[in-house]
Amino acid sequence: MQYLKKSFEGMEPYFSKEITDGIVLNANEAPYLPPKPILEEFNNRIKCLNFNRYPDMQNTKLCEAIAKKYQISKENVTCGVGSDELLEVTFRATLEPNDVVLSFSPSFSMYKVFTELHNAKFIGIDFNDDLSFDVDAMLKKIKENNPKLVLICSPNNPTGAILTQSEIIRIVTNTNALVLLDLAYVDFAKEDPTYLALKYNNLIAYRTFSKAMALASIRCGYAISNSNNIDMINAVKAPYSLSIPSQILSELAISNYDLYKENINNVISERDNLYSNLKKLGINVYPSEANFIYVKMDKKIYDGLLENKIYIRAFTDEIYRITVGLKEENEKLLKVVRKYAK
Amino acid sequence: MQYLKKSFEGMEPYFSKEITDGIVLNANEAPYLPPKPILEEFNNRIKCLNFNRYPDMQNTKLCEAIAKKYQISKENVTCGVGSDELLEVTFRATLEPNDVVLSFSPSFSMYKVFTELHNAKFIGIDFNDDLSFDVDAMLKKIKENNPKLVLICSPNNPTGAILTQSEIIRIVTNTNALVLLDLAYVDFAKEDPTYLALKYNNLIAYRTFSKAMALASIRCGYAISNSNNIDMINAVKAPYSLSIPSQILSELAISNYDLYKENINNVISERDNLYSNLKKLGINVYPSEANFIYVKMDKKIYDGLLENKIYIRAFTDEIYRITVGLKEENEKLLKVVRKYAK
Repeated sequence: MQYLKKSFEGMEPYFSKEITDGIVLNANEAPYLPPKPILEEFNNRIKCLNFNRYPDMQNTKLCEAIAKKYQISKENVTCGVGSDELLEVTFRATLEPNDVVLSFSPSFSMYKVFTELHNAKFIGIDFNDDLSFDVDAMLKKIKENNPKLVLICSPNNPTGAILTQSEIIRIVTNTNALVLLDLAYVDFAKEDPTYLALKYNNLIAYRTFSKAMALASIRCGYAISNSNNIDMINAVKAPYSLSIPSQILSELAISNYDLYKENINNVISERDNLYSNLKKLGINVYPSEANFIYVKMDKKIYDGLLENKIYIRAFTDEIYRITVGLKEENEKLLKVVRKYAK
Repeated sequence: MQYLKKSFEGMEPYFSKEITDGIVLNANEAPYLPPKPILEEFNNRIKCLNFNRYPDMQNTKLCEAIAKKYQISKENVTCGVGSDELLEVTFRATLEPNDVVLSFSPSFSMYKVFTELHNAKFIGIDFNDDLSFDVDAMLKKIKENNPKLVLICSPNNPTGAILTQSEIIRIVTNTNALVLLDLAYVDFAKEDPTYLALKYNNLIAYRTFSKAMALASIRCGYAISNSNNIDMINAVKAPYSLSIPSQILSELAISNYDLYKENINNVISERDNLYSNLKKLGINVYPSEANFIYVKMDKKIYDGLLENKIYIRAFTDEIYRITVGLKEENEKLLKVVRKYAK
């Protein structure tokens, strides 16, 4: 790659093999489709779409629908190609070389990638032994490092733990940094701290249609904050990024959020079942408020799952993340675990 | 915007008002829809789509369909959210602060924006008086400035002129820079130099589904080059950027390119009609091989068009770009021009 700039040396294309057969529990996707009335209305609208025209670059209707759901103004909302794009744009808008980015660790792997893309310094803060958040350690690191950005993923990917609202507030009010609150999995949690992003000037909440809304295929996410922070993202973001079909489908999904409740509740109860069953089988499991469970277990179990075409996410030879699937998928997984856990 | 970094100071959100009524000839969109068989097949495939799953991040089927059309390997192709994304990623992958980027000027406005985003130096090279490309001036600037990137848009937006293949080769073989050849409008031109991007190591061709393919709504573009350059773009590009609906529709479009030929030929003959009619009316027009015409004319004509809800692109009070529309749209435009040109 002769033209790649020096600071990017060693970067390689990211490659992931598409799985076309088996039980896919490795990407924290919803195991269900969007509710039928949403898809039917989408199919109707697609039929008379002006495919030859550029999208509305302000995503006006979608921003309005999101604003309506949270009872906020559309000036407090912006949309992007997944919350990834909006996170990356925020890094790009704010980070100068050698700035410090703090994050609990392990967390969403792109935080470190985005930091390094901008030649900034990433510091990860370990979780407590029970994988709860160590807020004191974060506050100490904030004092020591004067970070430009603080990342919080809650429920945390891949561990599943949450920060309480008072813990979030404690971090936000004890730093001058901009705090990025990634709420990708919050629909599966007991509390929703999104509204805090309008109470504190240095807080942006990021949400996605890729998880609970069952729309990973269309790559759409949004950010909520005061209009200054939203303007900053919009100033740096590429115009025209969201396709019209993605805008339409997301708008229908958020406007019909209630239709998802049954599906979401099913995942929550399946998650809690899976947790107790794995525990009974002697697997080290950690409490989760997301649609996945973080486990420590023997590699032979993972190999057994693979052999049975059940795909979970492997971090090391003993650390894995299992996305909660449909009832029958989880049962099949448990059957295999039972066989190999002995 | 308190958190925006200093080097981005002055950046503002880009705002464009959506036009919902009238004749839209300001964005170089196709005036026709994609051919019916393509849309019908798309509607069928959408009905059974796994909306809850992430897209194939390698865009495998789409890359294969593009590779098939050009009889090249899929390793020579990558796709993105419009060719804009791929151009921006190439700038990001290669530019260090103070690097020089050369482009003919005026050209696609984002080249300068992307350059400045990376704190590099943009140098624009004027066209000849008849708005043909001044290749000698480009070669002189290459010698003087040792650029990192050279941008060529052919047919050029907004002027419509093209560089011949031998002129492109002359530039490519006289620089160490990476040459980015933006072919967004090439379907409307006499020659297609895309294949040159596999003959010269320092050349990447960029193409889009937004113009002749009548798919601006779905934001899809692609780049063609040797696998080293394609790997470089893939290494820096965000994974998962293209939605599944966008991948499917683009794949159908490129696989059925022949179905577009009649539409494309109509635009070409409408363009040539519009050109001669505008000339007859005493308007300064420039030869174009794209789906638009660059004109110098009195502002009162532009105001008259606006009054009649005919929207063209204004660069200054005397320089405009008119996208070629449907026959009846062009006739309406000519009628208004005739009235105000006197």
